[in-house]
Amino acid sequence: MANDQPPRPSRRGFLKAGSAAVAAGASLGATGVAQAALGKTPAHAADPTMAVEPFYGLHQGGIVTPQQSHTYVAALDLTTEKRDDVIALLRAWTDAAARLTQGATAGPLPTDAAAKTALADTKIDTQVETKADAKANDTAYSPTNAKAAPDSGDVLGLGPCGLTITFGFGPGLFTKDGKDRYGLASRRPAALVDLPRFNGDQLIAEKTGGDLFIQACANDQQVAFHAVRQLSRLASGVATMRWGQSGFLSGPRGQTPRNLMGFKDGTNNPSTAKPQLMNEFVWAGATADAPWMEGGTYTVVRRIRITLEHWDNTEVGFQEQVFGRHKYSGAPIGKKNEFDPVDLKEEDKDGNPVIPENSHVRLSNQASNNGAQILRRSYSYNEGTNFYIERWPPWRQETEYDAGLIFLAHQSDPRKGFIPINEKLAKFDMMNQFTTHVGSAIFAVPPGAKPGSYIGAGLFET
Amino acid sequence: MANDQPPRPSRRGFLKAGSAAVAAGASLGATGVAQAALGKTPAHAADPTMAVEPFYGLHQGGIVTPQQSHTYVAALDLTTEKRDDVIALLRAWTDAAARLTQGATAGPLPTDAAAKTALADTKIDTQVETKADAKANDTAYSPTNAKAAPDSGDVLGLGPCGLTITFGFGPGLFTKDGKDRYGLASRRPAALVDLPRFNGDQLIAEKTGGDLFIQACANDQQVAFHAVRQLSRLASGVATMRWGQSGFLSGPRGQTPRNLMGFKDGTNNPSTAKPQLMNEFVWAGATADAPWMEGGTYTVVRRIRITLEHWDNTEVGFQEQVFGRHKYSGAPIGKKNEFDPVDLKEEDKDGNPVIPENSHVRLSNQASNNGAQILRRSYSYNEGTNFYIERWPPWRQETEYDAGLIFLAHQSDPRKGFIPINEKLAKFDMMNQFTTHVGSAIFAVPPGAKPGSYIGAGLFET
Repeated sequence: MANDQPPRPSRRGFLKAGSAAVAAGASLGATGVAQAALGKTPAHAADPTMAVEPFYGLHQGGIVTPQQSHTYVAALDLTTEKRDDVIALLRAWTDAAARLTQGATAGPLPTDAAAKTALADTKIDTQVETKADAKANDTAYSPTNAKAAPDSGDVLGLGPCGLTITFGFGPGLFTKDGKDRYGLASRRPAALVDLPRFNGDQLIAEKTGGDLFIQACANDQQVAFHAVRQLSRLASGVATMRWGQSGFLSGPRGQTPRNLMGFKDGTNNPSTAKPQLMNEFVWAGATADAPWMEGGTYTVVRRIRITLEHWDNTEVGFQEQVFGRHKYSGAPIGKKNEFDPVDLKEEDKDGNPVIPENSHVRLSNQASNNGAQILRRSYSYNEGTNFYIERWPPWRQETEYDAGLIFLAHQSDPRKGFIPINEKLAKFDMMNQFTTHVGSAIFAVPPGAKPGSYIGAGLFET
Repeated sequence: MANDQPPRPSRRGFLKAGSAAVAAGASLGATGVAQAALGKTPAHAADPTMAVEPFYGLHQGGIVTPQQSHTYVAALDLTTEKRDDVIALLRAWTDAAARLTQGATAGPLPTDAAAKTALADTKIDTQVETKADAKANDTAYSPTNAKAAPDSGDVLGLGPCGLTITFGFGPGLFTKDGKDRYGLASRRPAALVDLPRFNGDQLIAEKTGGDLFIQACANDQQVAFHAVRQLSRLASGVATMRWGQSGFLSGPRGQTPRNLMGFKDGTNNPSTAKPQLMNEFVWAGATADAPWMEGGTYTVVRRIRITLEHWDNTEVGFQEQVFGRHKYSGAPIGKKNEFDPVDLKEEDKDGNPVIPENSHVRLSNQASNNGAQILRRSYSYNEGTNFYIERWPPWRQETEYDAGLIFLAHQSDPRKGFIPINEKLAKFDMMNQFTTHVGSAIFAVPPGAKPGSYIGAGLFET
């Protein structure tokens, strides 16, 4: 990461930038984009639409990256039986993701006459690729209709928006229905467990699981979705979408954002500024069973629907008891400031705990979980109206919004992280009156790729 | 609109601003907020989160207001049989909307001990309302649990974000199942027709219709949803949510944004800068049957699902034929620049029309519709995955995304605007191969309210 003056391509000048990347790619392979990506880019530019995050590196982006304002997360199921197809897909995804995160289109723009005419007609500084360029980049995409443009073009004119793209592998990549489709069964990390059923789970199959995972985060909703849309196209004939989900997070920059319940969410996260904490709690080590996961992480996704109408109808004092924090300041109950330490031993004059026994903060606190921590990077979601929710079938609770939290947590080992913490929460958390887990997935997120290589190379090639 | 130095309250300093508004409200009625709202505010501040739009005025906001980046639109069904309940709701909505658009909470924050302690603990400059204030403002909200806070608090710390709130009346306010519930049947405007069934319509009842309409638009997704959420709570016991829908629009500021199909959307809108065009095509006049609608408009909402995967698999040249415009520049086919006039008579050397007969631009053009124009103010929507779409039952088309367009159009008379235009489009538009209308609604959007009055007062009181 020695380049102190990185290029700053963006979709604002997409044609030029895209073509430059293509030209570089034609002569240098993927390293043209890679070297740009390895440049030391500011995590968040003053204009969040112009922020650029590196793609290549030791770790994948989107894990300790300062949280962008939007996400689109998706899981796909592999339909191919061929190991080489999976590798080709991961190569194509890597190349496209490197381009997209740097503000370029997923692939070079088309050279057909109509488009060429249109391009020539724009005022934008254009530099249309040559046939030779196009041929050199043929491997970068494979739409069913080879003449279709490799990019939907709906984010042209927008900036890179700090886009990160994070790929993960579900249990189904290793074994599915007892079948070792790709010769990877013996390489499945022990930490990539099948999640147990938690108390209260009401999982919907269509929103659960998946062989492959894509998490796109950006400071713009359309840019995040655009990334997954292009990547999903690249999977044509190899994998199909299982579920997709849009998420958002509105917060004053530099402050802990509030979730839809009105409370600050993420205050007690381990600090991403402390490498030793990240190494302990977030990054997977080189375990004997999965040395290829070193520098990766394990990601749990839960779709948590919240009955906002019922929550809104409770008193603030009650809400604070549920969270164990004050609503407006974010401070632990009895404390003044958001980042004051949570003192679980403190008692009131009657000897009762100041932070209630069944409060969310107490149950999820490191001190209640043998020192375990996870890095939460959740988003709110909002999918209109849906007037009931299964709670304890046949009981259906009336509600209005299909809204809540896309809970996303990264950890070095879910057996020490999400699973024990959520087992406790699922049984005792007062918040469960208002929340229902309707979707769930777990993925092994491999380390970042080196320029010229691809995400997951360590799994397939070592 | 004489006040050149308007106050600029915002949720960043929400407690102070909210209390100031409350204090003013207690002594002056609604005019405290109103005068702030009537101030000459810049349409879009340099920081879009700090933009403030007026609430009171001749017209409602959110119609000719420069389009914000997000919306949440919703329809509610009235469950009450009492005319006074409807009036009380509209009064409560007006007061809350005036507060919300100016960056305050929907109602004053609670004074219960827990919240008070929390407030005292924050570093924010607080000024908690007195019991007297609270009593004076009791009419401003009526949650089922009177002790619950009148605002969910999830946007505290965010700015006003240019929020506009627009209310409308569906046919069901006037007559429902043949019943004149509120003595308004004779006041139903002739222009508020029941929309006919259009060719290809596949309307889902749960996403169609509604007695009351709320359109909240803001430069932040959470702020838009927050507004509808608070207003829906105020309707408790009087009306229930029928449908709600989140939308977004990503565009470089000052340029025509691209929709999910990758084309610029809205280029051919009548200019909101030309009052004579707005008076002709957007604002309703004082018709004999509905004098109370003068300064209002008629709004059509269509939820148009788009099979993005199939669209992405077509060539750019074909896409341009469908739209009748070049994709990248936005220019009419054969023209150079986006705003070049659409010349429907132009022919190529073989005598064929340059802009195809069945292209979207030709069919929807003013010249093809007896001079009719409508003001489109649409948003994209994205609700995850849903793997089929009803087309011509029992034929279901396979698809992946439940995404597309929340088409929103405002017009002085839908009988001359949306209806004839869409009748033509529904039959002949090449785009129909990729689009399916799954939701629909029409509303009479009354003029803006005067300070001290309420939205719809003209309907009930003249």
